[in-house]
This record gives sequence, structure tokens and C-alpha cells, in this order.
Amino acid sequence: MINRLVKAISEKKAPVVVGLDPMLDYIPEQIRKEAFDKYGETLEGAAEAVIMFNREIVDATAELIPAVKPQIAMYEQFGIPGIIAYKKTVDYCREKGLIVIADIKRGDIGSTSGAYAAGHLGRVQVGEKSYMPFDADMATVNPYLGTDGVKPFVDVCKSCDKGIFVLVKTSNPSSGEFQDRSFGEETLYEAVADQVNAWGADLMEGEYSNVGAVVGATYPEMGRELRARMPHAYILVPGYGVQGGTGKDLAGFFHKNGLGAIVNSSRGIIAAWKQEKYSSYGAANFGEASRKAVEDMLEDIRAAVY
Amino acid sequence: MINRLVKAISEKKAPVVVGLDPMLDYIPEQIRKEAFDKYGETLEGAAEAVIMFNREIVDATAELIPAVKPQIAMYEQFGIPGIIAYKKTVDYCREKGLIVIADIKRGDIGSTSGAYAAGHLGRVQVGEKSYMPFDADMATVNPYLGTDGVKPFVDVCKSCDKGIFVLVKTSNPSSGEFQDRSFGEETLYEAVADQVNAWGADLMEGEYSNVGAVVGATYPEMGRELRARMPHAYILVPGYGVQGGTGKDLAGFFHKNGLGAIVNSSRGIIAAWKQEKYSSYGAANFGEASRKAVEDMLEDIRAAVY
Repeated sequence: MINRLVKAISEKKAPVVVGLDPMLDYIPEQIRKEAFDKYGETLEGAAEAVIMFNREIVDATAELIPAVKPQIAMYEQFGIPGIIAYKKTVDYCREKGLIVIADIKRGDIGSTSGAYAAGHLGRVQVGEKSYMPFDADMATVNPYLGTDGVKPFVDVCKSCDKGIFVLVKTSNPSSGEFQDRSFGEETLYEAVADQVNAWGADLMEGEYSNVGAVVGATYPEMGRELRARMPHAYILVPGYGVQGGTGKDLAGFFHKNGLGAIVNSSRGIIAAWKQEKYSSYGAANFGEASRKAVEDMLEDIRAAVY
Repeated sequence: MINRLVKAISEKKAPVVVGLDPMLDYIPEQIRKEAFDKYGETLEGAAEAVIMFNREIVDATAELIPAVKPQIAMYEQFGIPGIIAYKKTVDYCREKGLIVIADIKRGDIGSTSGAYAAGHLGRVQVGEKSYMPFDADMATVNPYLGTDGVKPFVDVCKSCDKGIFVLVKTSNPSSGEFQDRSFGEETLYEAVADQVNAWGADLMEGEYSNVGAVVGATYPEMGRELRARMPHAYILVPGYGVQGGTGKDLAGFFHKNGLGAIVNSSRGIIAAWKQEKYSSYGAANFGEASRKAVEDMLEDIRAAVY
């Protein structure tokens, strides 16, 4: 899987991923109105608005980007209709040739992580038949439970040619509360990084492993350090733009050849139409505003890393 | 919420929770056949089998227990039909008067945790209307992202009278890999425990807070230590029975008055009919086997803690 991602990034010169994290207030009035006219102000109506919104963003940006990252919480909040919208989003993006990184941050004891891995990336057996229920390409994983919580995801990566990104150093303000604690010589995030290397050792494809890492754009010094510490891990970098990271902060997350990291922007792209900078597009052309925001992001990041 | 749980535990003299974590091979052939006859060997068929199975377990055990803990991964693995079965399970158990602890182990950056909290415990706004999509009573939360990832759950506990259990020391074999690392004077799990106290300080109801903790039965020494360290946190104790913990290991998780902890058993109860010990019930009477397994568990735990 990681080779497919690297190839798509290289071909499009685009180490970026668009986060499909639709809050209802990112969605223009005309879309919400159409959805609510059909389904009322219901969970089904919200899910329909999300799907309509996502499709237009994806249609406008797909040719520029290698991948999307739907944050499942933003769908789960709308209950079952929301989860259906999540699945439709995954399928729509894959039909468009995009790699789908499911931002699920799951992690549990072994047998339970196995169920998550099967459901989101792999295959589940029902009698004589088997199914791939959500069938994303890659997923984010929480390491708090240690190796036996991550291993089932690693196994599914191997059996189904999928990839994962393990949370190492997250982008949020309080990520340091536990992650930066140091035991003697090393911090928790460094200890997790070393395990990322170990978990990924058997899953190499060329230079990179199917076990990657999440490191927030908001911590550029740690990004540089972790780039060196996990030479074969692709780094998924959230926190660009609205969360505070900028292009020049990001060079350290990449190898010298411009590979090794993929930067996510969610609100900065999908809610671009609400920003002063893109206000000339108007709510009616929110997809075009998102496209322009992707182009601007690409320019910023290419300048920093190529 | 925690008062409701304490009251139910006291009334039934039952500091236990049944884990509704149905794997298909826990489900007797006759149930699977009936479900597959209706829906085929499909995800819908699997979900139907799960629901039929859960209902019979719940009917047989509800009067003995205060709460159930569905592990959402076991439903999520069957995709959308699985999630529908999860929701039906939550609703069915609540109708039976049981407290539902959603074992979801979610945790993310603030706005995303907010969406999880709204979806699973709280309320989501759609236009002028609002909904409680999954509406469990309590949920498990992963602390790796620190305070801003937990805070949205705490806020929903406050606004909607719900409760959470934060992962402190998990029951799995490799939980020590990160959780037991020590920085100077204290370990990671101790640092998390201290934050559990801080997060829960504003959510007291009598002796206990609506912010509790997860500590595995498989680590009784740490259970004793953490009981003292988090005097106001109710402790959810997984890992009893099949994972290795026994009644006599559990006394340390409780206060002297027999309160302060609730012990989960999943496979040991719901798949009791498959054990040698309960084989006389036969697959046809799997619900009765589960009831007997709850009675035996209660006897074991009451002897240790009362």
C-alpha cells in the first residue's frame, strides 16, 4: 500500500491529504437546505448534507491530491446515518482513485483490535462468505495499549496490503501532557516511535514501511527529530493551517528527496469558502474555493520541501 | 450518573458488568442458522444473529446485574449492519433498566473528541433540532492525547449527566509497554491516574466522580495502588475470568465498604455454554448457562469483597 501512496504523491507532486471532516457549519446553506428539504432536520438530513458536500469537494480537488482522510468522528456524531455517510464517502473517494486514510484512532486489547482492523481495513468472515465492511486503504491507530493492541492492524496490513499510521506525537495543544514525559533518556513519544520501527520492520515496500506515524505539524522540532528516528516510516502530519503549522515548519518532516511525509489540512480546505481570503468564490462555489486552497497549500509546501 | 450505577450495584449486590462482545463463534448454531436463513451469510445476517444472541443473554441475566458493556468493535467489524446491531443492543439494554457502558475507547484532538462525545453520550444539533444518536450512559475514553482530548467527554458528562472511564492501566499482556514506563518518581499510568482525579474533580456525586478509570483485573497490585491513588474514581475492571483475573485478585480494587469498582466479564459469561463447566445446559439453553455463570461470578466476587 505505501508504495501506491508514494507513487501517487510523486506523480502529483502533492504530499498533501485533504481531511474530510465536515462539521455542519462548514456546509453552505444551499446544500443544507436541499438535504433538509429531502429528509428534514434529522440525522438523515445531516448525513445527506455531508455526502453532498464531500462529493463536491472531492470532485473539485481529486486531480490535485493523492489521498483523503475522513475523520470518522465527524460522521459517527450523526449516528447510523452518519456512519452510512462515512462509508459512502470512502467508496466515492476510492472510485475517484484517491487513497483513503481512515482517521479512526482505534486501539484496544488484541482480540478487539483485531475486530477493528478487520472491519475498517480487512475482511470479516460470516459463515462461508467474507466481506470487507468499510474497506479503507489505511487507518490511524492509537498505541496506548502497546504491541498486542497494534499487532492485529499490522497483520491486516500484511494480509490485505493496507497501511497504518500510529499516533506518535499528536498536533493538539495538550499532546505533551503524556507524550512528552521523559523516562530517563527518552520521552514517551520517542518510545512509541521506536516501536513504530519495530512493528513496521516486516512490512517494508522499498524505502518505506506500511506502518507509518502521526506527528503534528505544530511541533516542528519534534518532527525533525522523529524523521531521523523513524527513517522508514511515512509521517502523516496533521495540524497544518488552522491548527497553526505552516509550510516552512514542515521541511523537517520530509527526507531530502521530498518524500517521507504527507501533510493533512481539513478545515483550511473544506471550509475555505468561509475564509476572507477565498470569500470572492461565494458559498455557491465552495468546491472551487477548496480547489484554490489546495493549490495554495501545494505551493506553500512545495516551496518548503522540494 | 455514577450515583445511579452505585445504587444499582448496591441494590443487586452485584459489582459486575456483562461484556456484550459477541464473536460469531460464541453464538450457538441454531441462532446463526435462523439469522442466516433470513438474511443469508451476509453482514445483515451476522448482525441479526448478534442481536438475537444479545437479547437472550440480556433477558436471562438482567435482573442479576446493574450494567452491560457492549464492546463496539465487535459490532463495527460487521460494518453498517453491525453498528445498527450495536444501537439496537444499547436501546434494548436501556429498556431493560440496565446501565450501558459503551466500550468505545475513543480519544482524539478536542473538536474531534467533542464529536465522539456528542455522538455516543450527548446531543448533536441538526438545524433547529437536536438528537442523542447512540445515547449510551457511560463510555470508555483513551487518554493518549491528554486533557484537550478528554475534556469534551467531561463536558458532556456534565451537561447530559453521563459518565466515563478513562483507560489508566489496561488488562492486556503488553499494557506495560508504555503504561508502566516510569519518569522519575512515577509511571505513565500513575500520571494518567492523577489526571483522572483532576478531570473528575468537578463531577462529583457523593463519594464518586462521573470520571472513572479502567484498571485491568490482571494487575492486582496496581489495582490496589490505583484504588488508593484515585479515591473518588469508580474503577471499571476488565480481564476477569478468561483474561486471567480471579475474585481473590480483586479485593484491592474495592473500598472497604465493597464499593468503588465494577468488574467486567465478557466471554466467560456470554460464551459460558461453550465451557466444560456449563456444558450440561447445551447450546439450546445458552442464556441459562450465562445466567449461571453470572451467579458463579457474583459468588466469587462477593466472597472477595464483602
